[in-house]
Amino acid sequence: MEKFKFEVLYKSKKSRARVGRIYTSHGVIDTPSFVAVGTNGTLKAVDNKIVDFLGLQLMFCNTYHLLLHPGVDLIKKAGGIHKFASRNGPIITDSGGFQVFSLAYGSVCEELKSKGTKKHNGGVLKINEDGVLFRSYRDGSKILLTPESSIEAQKKIGADIIVSFDELPPYHIDNKKLQESLDRTHRWEKRSLDAHLKNKNNQALYSVIHGGVDKELRKKSCEYLKTLPFDGFAIGGSVGKDRQEMLQMLKFLMPILPENKPNHLLGIGDIESIKGIIPFGVDTFDSSHPTRCARHGLLFTKKGTLRILKSGNSQVFRPIEDDCLCSTCQNYTLSYIYHLFKANELSALTLATIHNIHFMIELLKEYQGKILRDEI
Amino acid sequence: MEKFKFEVLYKSKKSRARVGRIYTSHGVIDTPSFVAVGTNGTLKAVDNKIVDFLGLQLMFCNTYHLLLHPGVDLIKKAGGIHKFASRNGPIITDSGGFQVFSLAYGSVCEELKSKGTKKHNGGVLKINEDGVLFRSYRDGSKILLTPESSIEAQKKIGADIIVSFDELPPYHIDNKKLQESLDRTHRWEKRSLDAHLKNKNNQALYSVIHGGVDKELRKKSCEYLKTLPFDGFAIGGSVGKDRQEMLQMLKFLMPILPENKPNHLLGIGDIESIKGIIPFGVDTFDSSHPTRCARHGLLFTKKGTLRILKSGNSQVFRPIEDDCLCSTCQNYTLSYIYHLFKANELSALTLATIHNIHFMIELLKEYQGKILRDEI
Repeated sequence: MEKFKFEVLYKSKKSRARVGRIYTSHGVIDTPSFVAVGTNGTLKAVDNKIVDFLGLQLMFCNTYHLLLHPGVDLIKKAGGIHKFASRNGPIITDSGGFQVFSLAYGSVCEELKSKGTKKHNGGVLKINEDGVLFRSYRDGSKILLTPESSIEAQKKIGADIIVSFDELPPYHIDNKKLQESLDRTHRWEKRSLDAHLKNKNNQALYSVIHGGVDKELRKKSCEYLKTLPFDGFAIGGSVGKDRQEMLQMLKFLMPILPENKPNHLLGIGDIESIKGIIPFGVDTFDSSHPTRCARHGLLFTKKGTLRILKSGNSQVFRPIEDDCLCSTCQNYTLSYIYHLFKANELSALTLATIHNIHFMIELLKEYQGKILRDEI
Repeated sequence: MEKFKFEVLYKSKKSRARVGRIYTSHGVIDTPSFVAVGTNGTLKAVDNKIVDFLGLQLMFCNTYHLLLHPGVDLIKKAGGIHKFASRNGPIITDSGGFQVFSLAYGSVCEELKSKGTKKHNGGVLKINEDGVLFRSYRDGSKILLTPESSIEAQKKIGADIIVSFDELPPYHIDNKKLQESLDRTHRWEKRSLDAHLKNKNNQALYSVIHGGVDKELRKKSCEYLKTLPFDGFAIGGSVGKDRQEMLQMLKFLMPILPENKPNHLLGIGDIESIKGIIPFGVDTFDSSHPTRCARHGLLFTKKGTLRILKSGNSQVFRPIEDDCLCSTCQNYTLSYIYHLFKANELSALTLATIHNIHFMIELLKEYQGKILRDEI
């Protein structure tokens, strides 16, 4: 079985952008790479055989959701997530922490809207040094998520890349509390690593760099986590309230990451952001944005996003993009896809998702080419 | 371009069952054949390339729906329904009458529940000798459906097989009114035929035999329609309030149909009914039952219908059927499909639909074999 390995194949002469390759026992990931989100072990509206056919190299599954259903013991019994979901290529799981804390605090976006006054705690019963106790929204059972139980869950799921358990502090937090949260996250990540090293299971473990929007804390986090034998570095927590703040933070943070390890930017994947982050040397990044857009009839093209339900599209007897090689564009016209969306046909969602995923994969191949030619 | 043609290849020595072949310019249909319903030019939850791959020989589209959206002029502009929907194989459309009258009277099932007291008329404004005037539920516009306009619409859609415009009398109707309705239907079918013969457009036109649950009227309908140069004979209207009544009517009716023309039973396709109708010599029949069942998690197997959400299935790491060659069974386990249904994933609906359609196609191939061996 191939061991986890990372190679930097080329560094741009123009920026910190780089082309690399991650090796896993389920295949390679050519970086920079878009990672599609298949929360429940499937992308929305397309099955894993279509995903294979599309050539998606890395799929992101959510431990929180898989823990609640079907349960990690069942996935283990099935032979692991690859076998369970009939997914041949590499998979990455998160720790489950993000979802639990999002439930407690709300997303950054929700928080900004509510100014940090979110009242519901999404079933979170207790947060202490041990971990987080929360109530399953499925069956009401209490679930304790700790560094050790998260790693154990991720071992049972069996993804190629797993992620340390961290605390996700709210965006509205004073500096002292952010500092305390970071220290706890570091202790949790060390415990995650210890649990992982007892049974590597041919998996790679990424740490998560925290520190919110405080550059000094981000630096501190980076310096500390670099001292530990993690296989890669994810960037988590709130990196800013908007794209501008995020890019400023990454400009500062990326140069202090170790160059010989792969990095992953959590939860970013809109096309404008990608343009901004690639020159900083981001290797992989996950987002449900392209698949969610597809289901809302927002189709990606080289000329920008096309809103399928714009009435003019009903008369366009050409594909979404003339030179696109995806099976949707090879077979169907905008007129037909418009009709399917209007008629609320489920096949509309599948065809749109296929196109957007294909678009993202091609886009990242183009970025790889540009890096190799020192164009970015 | 291949002309419409029908051949009886073999007649069972045991019953009236027969194996035949319908030739169209978009390919052949081996009969008896299950016809899947793709109301809006797509089956629910699977796109037409998957349908091609599954080997579905005939797809049923609804003129009523296509008339309201995207409109038949647009389909004509796109180059016809095959090109518009990227469907390579044969297509049949109905006249639109069934849906309009169903809206007015309700389905037989609804009618039986309400005992014919349905108050809403579903937008039907006027029914007279000319045709039916109704209001589009989409944009409120008034649409007049007559024999001539139905045929014109079906010419613009461009299916391989089209159907005469008929009146669908309610199930609760006295004999005099049923007789009057039948006479009008005959006049409408003659007008449909006249409109068709002016521009055959390489399409075949089927008549629809009516007469409700009255055997004498059914016979009269059959005798009359046989005198006209239709390419095939559909059986429409209420053939009974339950399977038993339907089978009794078909036992009476099928022997008086012309043997050298293909027949089509409208709107029947559950597995028990198929078992009953094949020995009477039914050639094709359409039903949305298999695809609807799939979306409700009812999966067809040789041992009967399997309800995916039965909790035991979560632990079954085998396919829906061990020896099934459909792509769902070749790649996924019951356990995974159970999980996708539980998690409300759209891919669940696609995987289930693929299996049920494949099952129906294989089932009909088996029936063909049984007829050839005189087993039924």
